[in-house]
Amino acid sequence: MDRDSLELRSTITADGLLRLHLEPTRLPEPGPGQLLVRVEAAPVNPSDLGLMFGPADMDSLTVEGQALTARVPDRAMPAMRARIGQSLPVGNEGAGTVVAAGADLAHLVGRRVAMFGGAMYARLRLIAMTDCILLPEGAEAADGAALFVNPLTALGFVQTMRDEAHSAIVHAPAASNLGQMLVRICQDEGIGLVNIVRSPDQVALLRGLGATHVVDSSADSFADDLREAIADTGATLSFDAIGGGEMTSTVLNAMEAVAARSMTGYDRYGSAVLKQGYVYGGLDTGPTVLRRGFGFSWAVGGWLLFHFLQRADPATVQAMRERVARQMTTTFASHYTARITLAQALDPAVVAAYTRKSTGEKYLITP
Amino acid sequence: MDRDSLELRSTITADGLLRLHLEPTRLPEPGPGQLLVRVEAAPVNPSDLGLMFGPADMDSLTVEGQALTARVPDRAMPAMRARIGQSLPVGNEGAGTVVAAGADLAHLVGRRVAMFGGAMYARLRLIAMTDCILLPEGAEAADGAALFVNPLTALGFVQTMRDEAHSAIVHAPAASNLGQMLVRICQDEGIGLVNIVRSPDQVALLRGLGATHVVDSSADSFADDLREAIADTGATLSFDAIGGGEMTSTVLNAMEAVAARSMTGYDRYGSAVLKQGYVYGGLDTGPTVLRRGFGFSWAVGGWLLFHFLQRADPATVQAMRERVARQMTTTFASHYTARITLAQALDPAVVAAYTRKSTGEKYLITP
Repeated sequence: MDRDSLELRSTITADGLLRLHLEPTRLPEPGPGQLLVRVEAAPVNPSDLGLMFGPADMDSLTVEGQALTARVPDRAMPAMRARIGQSLPVGNEGAGTVVAAGADLAHLVGRRVAMFGGAMYARLRLIAMTDCILLPEGAEAADGAALFVNPLTALGFVQTMRDEAHSAIVHAPAASNLGQMLVRICQDEGIGLVNIVRSPDQVALLRGLGATHVVDSSADSFADDLREAIADTGATLSFDAIGGGEMTSTVLNAMEAVAARSMTGYDRYGSAVLKQGYVYGGLDTGPTVLRRGFGFSWAVGGWLLFHFLQRADPATVQAMRERVARQMTTTFASHYTARITLAQALDPAVVAAYTRKSTGEKYLITP
Repeated sequence: MDRDSLELRSTITADGLLRLHLEPTRLPEPGPGQLLVRVEAAPVNPSDLGLMFGPADMDSLTVEGQALTARVPDRAMPAMRARIGQSLPVGNEGAGTVVAAGADLAHLVGRRVAMFGGAMYARLRLIAMTDCILLPEGAEAADGAALFVNPLTALGFVQTMRDEAHSAIVHAPAASNLGQMLVRICQDEGIGLVNIVRSPDQVALLRGLGATHVVDSSADSFADDLREAIADTGATLSFDAIGGGEMTSTVLNAMEAVAARSMTGYDRYGSAVLKQGYVYGGLDTGPTVLRRGFGFSWAVGGWLLFHFLQRADPATVQAMRERVARQMTTTFASHYTARITLAQALDPAVVAAYTRKSTGEKYLITP
């Protein structure tokens, strides 16, 4: 049995150098409940880029033999303290073919699984079956590569909406693979969704999926459009992957303007309607700026899939996973801009492309 | 029975003029459960100033006969829409002597009560007994003037801490009357409290009350001092009356730095410790700026006494009111910089003084 792997690793040294390289490793034999999987496809999610490149200055990217290096600015080093010197494997999720298994799972050899749990940018991955979804016979690896992060996040938004007694959602930026899944989920379930996108092309994309409320933040009429879409849906909950800047603030102010329409008298503390904004990403790592024109009944907070899954009812999470497996080529289908090998993931020109974080561009690593 | 009152009123006209004047009114006779009270003392709280002056340009303050006027900037008018043309009485709370009462409460005539419910900057106030606290025989009106807003807010912070499973509190700015009450409450109950103040004098003031953790935001060592005080108390909850700027962000980042000390490995999403910041005032009406160096387990939101009281268990609120009445000259004592009459409240020189919002300065209106 071939148990020799190559893993993409990211290391930051004490003197401020980020190093990416392929580390040869030899994996143990799978024990009970474990699978040894040949990784065939793993997406490059924004959350992966955070671990891969950290706060490195991408202009300083240099090829050094088989590795890539880049400088980490001094000001960013304190936050990196806990990872200094550690060779960290990368890649949250992926899919591949089972090449060996614990005795109890021997019947799965040859089958494809979707996997979640890190270290996916590798030739091989040893993993517990409980961190996998068994794919149907004949499924493509690419179809199973991204069945965790985006699908469970989108379903997590809807579950959060229900848990916190909201009835509709505002999402920005909404044209991403995740955003498209959310459009389809909300359509299926009849949930009001306000999609904030950044260009007319993205408006067309989401309208093509059947989205009802798509507002373009690049349009002059954005503020009015957003307010009317919020009025139509009754959304009092938003999810924002941008993080920095004023998007969440803009959304909460629009929600308050809508709530004010139903107020019978003046209240200097604003409406009593709770307006909740969650920041679930940091595409813009700059400060979140809140212009508090939305009274005192508001909350803004971080939303993270891992925290959500830890707190959620296990039966709910299991139901989500089963739904994702059932609808992997429909509701939860992802689209990729390009496929690259592990070696290409260390090619500076390719790195420049997949780190751009453009909405709608998505890379798939096929080790 | 004298039922002729004078009420301080605030009006904003459609063309952007704020007008403050004294309105002669004649009150009805008190019915069952009601008291007619001669107002003898009412504090000027920041929340009162919000209603009195709104967003008016204080440099444009002009005396017009018996009234004061000021311009409201155009940009601030949309948010004022709901109050245009309304003559709004001012003054959240106060104390005075019962001059008449419904038949069921006739025994209270001549007694002093503390009151809550607006329209307190007036000669007389007709009020339900359920909105009053009966003061002990011989109590001064000044002692009962501020038994609602600050005391219930301070107790509300502690209740919120318990409800949301935190164990200590950070408060800024902490030298206010409210801050001093919070120091005494936390001492009584053995609760860790980090007091953020803005000058060495304020450090001395709170240390004089026996406060353990007082950090001065004007000191070079502020960041370190704050972090160590948070480490000592284990505070993961903060209340910030400043609102604008970076105070809440600074506190959450310090909490995260403390949480990071107990992390065993690197987590690019930050610690799992929930860091909660509440904004309960807007001394700085500028944007709240959040530098998200505190991972994904964080929440910032508005905190308002009225909303807290609406949601709280009535028995809890009743217990709070009884405690405030018992401890009105100790834990819940307020201190005033100056006493002014209703007429003086419309004197531009006096207005300039009481609208300064300096921590530790507090005015009492004695109609």
